Amino acid sequence: MKKLEDLQAIISKAVDELSFPKYPADLYEPISYILSLGGKRMRPALLLMACDLFGGDIESALPPALAIEVFHNFTLMHDDIMDNAPIRRGKTTVHERWNQNVGILSGDVMLVQGYKLMMQVKDHLLRPILDIFNTTAIGVCEGQQFDMEFEERNNVSIDEYLNMIRLKTAVVLGGALKIGALIGNADIKDAELLSSFGENLGIAFQLQDDILDVYGDPEKFGKQVGGDIISNKKTYLLIKAIELAKGEQIKNLNNWIALKQFDNGEKVVAVTNIYNSLNIREYAEEAMQAYADKAFEALDAINLPEEHKQYLRDFADGLLVREN
Amino acid sequence: MKKLEDLQAIISKAVDELSFPKYPADLYEPISYILSLGGKRMRPALLLMACDLFGGDIESALPPALAIEVFHNFTLMHDDIMDNAPIRRGKTTVHERWNQNVGILSGDVMLVQGYKLMMQVKDHLLRPILDIFNTTAIGVCEGQQFDMEFEERNNVSIDEYLNMIRLKTAVVLGGALKIGALIGNADIKDAELLSSFGENLGIAFQLQDDILDVYGDPEKFGKQVGGDIISNKKTYLLIKAIELAKGEQIKNLNNWIALKQFDNGEKVVAVTNIYNSLNIREYAEEAMQAYADKAFEALDAINLPEEHKQYLRDFADGLLVREN
Repeated sequence: MKKLEDLQAIISKAVDELSFPKYPADLYEPISYILSLGGKRMRPALLLMACDLFGGDIESALPPALAIEVFHNFTLMHDDIMDNAPIRRGKTTVHERWNQNVGILSGDVMLVQGYKLMMQVKDHLLRPILDIFNTTAIGVCEGQQFDMEFEERNNVSIDEYLNMIRLKTAVVLGGALKIGALIGNADIKDAELLSSFGENLGIAFQLQDDILDVYGDPEKFGKQVGGDIISNKKTYLLIKAIELAKGEQIKNLNNWIALKQFDNGEKVVAVTNIYNSLNIREYAEEAMQAYADKAFEALDAINLPEEHKQYLRDFADGLLVREN
Repeated sequence: MKKLEDLQAIISKAVDELSFPKYPADLYEPISYILSLGGKRMRPALLLMACDLFGGDIESALPPALAIEVFHNFTLMHDDIMDNAPIRRGKTTVHERWNQNVGILSGDVMLVQGYKLMMQVKDHLLRPILDIFNTTAIGVCEGQQFDMEFEERNNVSIDEYLNMIRLKTAVVLGGALKIGALIGNADIKDAELLSSFGENLGIAFQLQDDILDVYGDPEKFGKQVGGDIISNKKTYLLIKAIELAKGEQIKNLNNWIALKQFDNGEKVVAVTNIYNSLNIREYAEEAMQAYADKAFEALDAINLPEEHKQYLRDFADGLLVREN
């Protein structure tokens, strides 16, 4: 089994070597630009890992892995327009550096380039793999749409939220693993179990992210603690708190949400106190654990040598570190 | 051979019957909305026609034909954002009726839906047909990018212009015909000849459009005569005139182009007079005829019964009516 870091390095090199036509420059340069901004290359590395787990040839999985990375960056390019984001990974976003039309059109052609790369598989895998890719792409678009709608709504349920994060972030992880497994000659049942492992792990990871925003060690977490609270982001914690809070608590919470001018630290402390009094952290950790359990259940059922399963368990444990 | 109108009617009915998920509503309703705005359904009808020409089963060509129409409308949805267009076919555009983010994201998922529909072909055709679809989609994006760039440039050459209209409008016609021919069991050589027929005819048609804008009979043409002149649109005629005009003529032409306030009728007469003195109409008609000739040459070489070729000739003659 290749180490995850090695797979990430293989992807990084291959991404650097990807080349697109020179003209029209404003169509293709933004693609190279956004791909050059880096990132952990986790999705394509997972695709290679799945292929490797089943004894497949990593080389043959490289173009579809690049397809997943190109696709992911296409969604970032369009999301940045939709979110009006000026900065991505410390650099100017495409629509800011060029303009919005360039961001839209480069993104469009990037999605097509994703399909071209994804098609570089053996004939008998072409249809099943493209079916997975279509389902993944549709899921991500639906997730992004729900995410945007939830920003405007105050009655989002926990189930709706879980479905949104599943679509927006977890489905791609599951899809990447499933495609890699098929290229590695896994049978469809094992590929689906591995996909279920990845999808549930992805949801657990996102819930952990919600928890760490409030309860994480700022030094280990690497983000501002309470950033979600400050921006009223509808995380699992906030949605659960709105669901459970009564009387003075809900009045108090709604006041903080409605407030336009406030001291950041004060708001974080106040909302965290409400969370604490409602045991929100425990609810969130239970939900996270339930998805982690589902992931490990799927993993147990996969027909793979024990040491390969251990590799996946270690990977999952590494993701769900609970640094708090 | 089925009549073109009958094929268009088959498409219209099938488009009406296309259904998409109900939720998220803001993701899928815009797709149904833009598809309901109508249009001549020419691209998908050509795909069916090509299949029919080679004796194929039209029914089996219907999903890929719908794919072409869905793809075309995806490009319209995104182009309308890029062009800031409030109206499309007399109705509010998607980004105006909903908002810009909805237009971007619905368009994205529409492109994926196009791939899903295009994949409904027999296994042995899946790869060749998706290759054509990818090439077509990339061509359209490149054409749109060049078109936007040319608006800002004053040194566009005739060759650049011809390449732009080829990519932006003609490549889809060629692609649709090629896909339809393959579904109709044409061999690759005939499919390519038919594609070349469509692509060159498409360029000729676009050049005719440029000519008719200035020299067409307003009653038959159905558009405001001189609309391109009023808006300084870089058509074949304007680019050729800028290339040929010297001395007072080029000064005069540049003055009209730079003028912010003017009487529409006066500008149309003045620029048309410059065109006339430079024989621009003749140049444009020669270019148009050259592409029509290329189209007919390709047609002659196709291995099809004479009556089927006559059908295509009649179709081409119907398009290139020269109502002036």
